[in-house]
Amino acid sequence: MADTILETATRLTPKWDERGLIQAIATDAASGDLLMVAHMNGDALERTLESGEAHFWSRSRQAVWKKGETSGHILHVVEMRIDCDQDAVWMKVKPAGPACHTGERSCFYRIVEGKALRRD
Amino acid sequence: MADTILETATRLTPKWDERGLIQAIATDAASGDLLMVAHMNGDALERTLESGEAHFWSRSRQAVWKKGETSGHILHVVEMRIDCDQDAVWMKVKPAGPACHTGERSCFYRIVEGKALRRD
Repeated sequence: MADTILETATRLTPKWDERGLIQAIATDAASGDLLMVAHMNGDALERTLESGEAHFWSRSRQAVWKKGETSGHILHVVEMRIDCDQDAVWMKVKPAGPACHTGERSCFYRIVEGKALRRD
Repeated sequence: MADTILETATRLTPKWDERGLIQAIATDAASGDLLMVAHMNGDALERTLESGEAHFWSRSRQAVWKKGETSGHILHVVEMRIDCDQDAVWMKVKPAGPACHTGERSCFYRIVEGKALRRD
């Protein structure tokens, strides 16, 4: 599909990459903070839209997973947006717990300074 | 490198994917809105850290590009963070103009509702 059509379309036609994935970004609907970044395949996107709960594609496990399926830390999707060329979605979410598997609220708990990192 | 080391490290050791890329997310430092999502290779990350201006890797052109090089719509990096497994960076930026090549402030100007899209 031509770029201009992707950019102006009113129909959802994701531009899957060579792995069949788009990028999926979750920010906290209340604070605006970036919580996590992952990928979705068609199935994960479909399940997210149907359930209102964020689903992703695990590249390491090669499977769809629902965020919080075991931990209970579900991401409730308040709003989903798609970018100009339809290869990334942005979800504003209400998190039911820490978004990061490390127990941090956000996966982005380290600041990059030059080449060193410091914790939040 | 073991996951736990990546997660607790105080040294920047990006986990490049099979294409040699990490995800790079830019949000507006003032509003918190997601502006754009792209990729970085090592060179783009290096140049961003050195200049304080966002550089990315263009998958279509297979080249590093500085955002705003031709348009002047540079993204000035206020803060950079990296996620738990070091395969994504989050930049809080001051944009010098629209972040999207379409002229929109953000690339995410469409809301996904079911399978339809509506403009912001």
